Amino acid sequence: MLIRLGYDLQFQIPAPVTVVAMLHVHPSRAADLRAPDELHTEPAVPVDLYTDSFGNTAARLAAPAGTLRLHNSTVIEDSGLPDPVRPEAKQWPIEKLPTDVLQYLLPSRYSEVDRLSNTASELFGHIAPGWGRVQAICDWVHQKVTFGYQFARPTKSALDVYTERLGVCRDFQHLAITFCRAMNTPARYVTGYLGDIGVPPAPSPMDFSAWFQAYLDGRWWNFDARHNQPRIGRVLVAAGRDAADVAITTSFGTATLERFTVITDEIVEEQPRTAGQG
Amino acid sequence: MLIRLGYDLQFQIPAPVTVVAMLHVHPSRAADLRAPDELHTEPAVPVDLYTDSFGNTAARLAAPAGTLRLHNSTVIEDSGLPDPVRPEAKQWPIEKLPTDVLQYLLPSRYSEVDRLSNTASELFGHIAPGWGRVQAICDWVHQKVTFGYQFARPTKSALDVYTERLGVCRDFQHLAITFCRAMNTPARYVTGYLGDIGVPPAPSPMDFSAWFQAYLDGRWWNFDARHNQPRIGRVLVAAGRDAADVAITTSFGTATLERFTVITDEIVEEQPRTAGQG
Amino acid sequence: MLIRLGYDLQFQIPAPVTVVAMLHVHPSRAADLRAPDELHTEPAVPVDLYTDSFGNTAARLAAPAGTLRLHNSTVIEDSGLPDPVRPEAKQWPIEKLPTDVLQYLLPSRYSEVDRLSNTASELFGHIAPGWGRVQAICDWVHQKVTFGYQFARPTKSALDVYTERLGVCRDFQHLAITFCRAMNTPARYVTGYLGDIGVPPAPSPMDFSAWFQAYLDGRWWNFDARHNQPRIGRVLVAAGRDAADVAITTSFGTATLERFTVITDEIVEEQPRTAGQG
Amino acid sequence: MLIRLGYDLQFQIPAPVTVVAMLHVHPSRAADLRAPDELHTEPAVPVDLYTDSFGNTAARLAAPAGTLRLHNSTVIEDSGLPDPVRPEAKQWPIEKLPTDVLQYLLPSRYSEVDRLSNTASELFGHIAPGWGRVQAICDWVHQKVTFGYQFARPTKSALDVYTERLGVCRDFQHLAITFCRAMNTPARYVTGYLGDIGVPPAPSPMDFSAWFQAYLDGRWWNFDARHNQPRIGRVLVAAGRDAADVAITTSFGTATLERFTVITDEIVEEQPRTAGQG
Repeated sequence: MLIRLGYDLQFQIPAPVTVVAMLHVHPSRAADLRAPDELHTEPAVPVDLYTDSFGNTAARLAAPAGTLRLHNSTVIEDSGLPDPVRPEAKQWPIEKLPTDVLQYLLPSRYSEVDRLSNTASELFGHIAPGWGRVQAICDWVHQKVTFGYQFARPTKSALDVYTERLGVCRDFQHLAITFCRAMNTPARYVTGYLGDIGVPPAPSPMDFSAWFQAYLDGRWWNFDARHNQPRIGRVLVAAGRDAADVAITTSFGTATLERFTVITDEIVEEQPRTAGQG
Repeated sequence: MLIRLGYDLQFQIPAPVTVVAMLHVHPSRAADLRAPDELHTEPAVPVDLYTDSFGNTAARLAAPAGTLRLHNSTVIEDSGLPDPVRPEAKQWPIEKLPTDVLQYLLPSRYSEVDRLSNTASELFGHIAPGWGRVQAICDWVHQKVTFGYQFARPTKSALDVYTERLGVCRDFQHLAITFCRAMNTPARYVTGYLGDIGVPPAPSPMDFSAWFQAYLDGRWWNFDARHNQPRIGRVLVAAGRDAADVAITTSFGTATLERFTVITDEIVEEQPRTAGQG
Repeated sequence: MLIRLGYDLQFQIPAPVTVVAMLHVHPSRAADLRAPDELHTEPAVPVDLYTDSFGNTAARLAAPAGTLRLHNSTVIEDSGLPDPVRPEAKQWPIEKLPTDVLQYLLPSRYSEVDRLSNTASELFGHIAPGWGRVQAICDWVHQKVTFGYQFARPTKSALDVYTERLGVCRDFQHLAITFCRAMNTPARYVTGYLGDIGVPPAPSPMDFSAWFQAYLDGRWWNFDARHNQPRIGRVLVAAGRDAADVAITTSFGTATLERFTVITDEIVEEQPRTAGQG
Repeated sequence: MLIRLGYDLQFQIPAPVTVVAMLHVHPSRAADLRAPDELHTEPAVPVDLYTDSFGNTAARLAAPAGTLRLHNSTVIEDSGLPDPVRPEAKQWPIEKLPTDVLQYLLPSRYSEVDRLSNTASELFGHIAPGWGRVQAICDWVHQKVTFGYQFARPTKSALDVYTERLGVCRDFQHLAITFCRAMNTPARYVTGYLGDIGVPPAPSPMDFSAWFQAYLDGRWWNFDARHNQPRIGRVLVAAGRDAADVAITTSFGTATLERFTVITDEIVEEQPRTAGQG
């Protein structure tokens, strides 16, 4: 399956500002790209591409005052398969984890593992470690938290989500990764493209979305405490400890988002029409 | 100057637990070591040394139930000079920062940059960027926060320190790095050895301590919002976003600290006595 | 001046629930009423009127499942004068305050005086006590906090407002009363009718609004950190420590507000037309 | 049973300050006093006694700079019976509660009912309302929270206790009253004398203590989430929404507590010895 990916963001910038954008497809999916994945800017400014400490491709650019547009359109090949489900996947003991995975057990800005560890133990301590427990965490968060765009706020943390029970996709994942980490399951927050392929009727527009990954059986697996069902066509952009690490754009000064359009849709070839029928 | 460094920690461990220890001298000071810097454990358990994503040397070990002792003694050569003071050091624009420094502008678990940025601007926005502003931040925190060991708690964040005005060395640094980051000055939390060399009379026992580093003029400089004076003999152990990243030990389960002794003192050679005088 | 006052609220109630409503004009304005001030309910349910510990008229009613409508329309005589301004009004020493005023110096749910007292001292400690300092607090809050209905949330406290700098009228007042209390000025949160009389062009619809009162020179005075200008036609409904005490309605169970209309407008008599002209 | 009650507090006061003290036995126990219950001050300053909005006897005094001593000794008659236990006591529906009890359902400074209501429902929603559920709340808090004087801090709220699971008696009660209120059980925070009568061996020194009261079957009943067992000799001093309302002393300025001695002990008459026996 081929998926068209694209975005078009426009900012108003009152004074020159440096912006870090995480808009490139993750290096782990680079081999699947079928067209260049380049960040185009208007006006044209130098883009400094680098790999951050989590392995994501980040772009730094110095934006002048005025309107800044960031856009791209590319194509990626996808298996067309839904997120794998492996109920038998095991939680590894901490002493066997790759050392670069250990950081995903620690508390971070929006994941107060230290303040929610008792709650996690009370809710999930009776469940055997592994896939089933991560799924139980997703089920709990999915059931208890109500989705609404009006509930978004940039300072909202997992503890806020736990007490308020309201949020957007980012908030669902923050609470879920916090519970996972508290149970010694490495969990990382990810952003990426998520469309509505295979979801009839479309429950949500094409968008960047956040989900999370848990480390079981020696690899990362997709989980999504908001949608809580396997989905087709997730395309990873960035992974980090939480939303602070992988914001779509981080502006070190004022930059007001005016437009935000995302495209992620299956490329369906039209059937050649055969003349002469009928 | 030669400084003897050492530690002796003892834990009671009710059930097997994995511990990550950050007790090795930082790689940036490895060349100054004059004796091996090795983590000794009792009982002897395999120690898995690795470099974390921040460049620190970390040690992972699987501790059995019972008493666990971690100890070491080594020697390091030190300039014997106090922390440098460079009032002319400039804050670099974000677009010129090395990309691995950018993460030290982001919020982290104990550094809610997003919640204290307005306060930082109001307190320090009128001061020219650079060394002087970082020093003004240290002065403010040093003056406003009262030190006391009884004020320590593991969940205390920069915002808590800002509202409570009470804390231990870690708390002073968390508030200071948060203000620095809010002003677009990269700041990282560090731990290390700090004795009382050159401080008459000794204001504090030999200890592991926390201070912080600000990135100015293309390098990291030591600042210490608690002591707020240049000191001799700081030996860096680990640097990270905040205390969550560089805890002396992180136990993924219960491990009760029973003893904690640190040695960091100048090795003063006795003058050879000359016989026959007088 | 005569002002027509009215409200019309409608709730969907899935299961029987007790509701406490604070919708009656405050007893201190009862003598100004020119028509009955009665809470009408549909369906008709018994309404238990009482005076709460703050001196407000409250109404308790047991609502059955289904649609609940609360409505009223009355008329009040008003001086037609804007809120008085008394720059010479003094802050009284605490030992001279009436004892029933002392409670308005304490912290409450949405007014963490204990966590913001240092900030208050730093911002306002240099200003002489009295009217000028309360006004300075209003000016600060008015300038620093951005209004927006989308920033409302029921759990938002003064500390949240201080860090986020976003809110609705309730939030402005919570931060202002917290600063006042921290400076030993009694301050209470009030709700009431506020229209747009005398405000050309109307900056906001007729509504219930929140403002606050500070105790100076032996009486309570209106202040409003959101609008921050004297207004005509405020009609006090209820006063308390903060929004928890004087919610328009408090439902001890689920009651979903479906409609909320408020009328508060000057009754302008039409000039009698004189026949025979022209 | 006669119980001797007394206290002796000493403060250092750098500048004149108004202090409100809640040290008198509660009016509900006044009839049991067998000696005058008077607040003595050194130096002698006028004491302004009043009844606060919760019905407590409060004393306001203007303390000069220097040393301030507050002391008293009195005698009260007590039933000598432990706290009553009435497992059959019912929770009343909110529409039948006396209106002055309704305030004890609302959130307050240290009781964030709004942020812990979902947790309360999840933990206790399956238990039938009434005595058994309040006791279940006490059991939960008693079991989950660890006591330690070093865990006290003035800003600690019920949510902090829920996440940290550490505290002093005040903290246990704050969490318990928050859960009660969330379940629509009126609960108030109380302070008073609590000795070790009938508790062999003495588990704690004579002290002022905090416990709480829940409203069931039309009256208030003692519960104590810290000790969680019926006790003999509780003497009520003050009741309020939480610790903010009924602090032993509230100083509107600096007053440093230097000494704090409390006496509360049974008066055991010596048996007259009879001469000449044997």
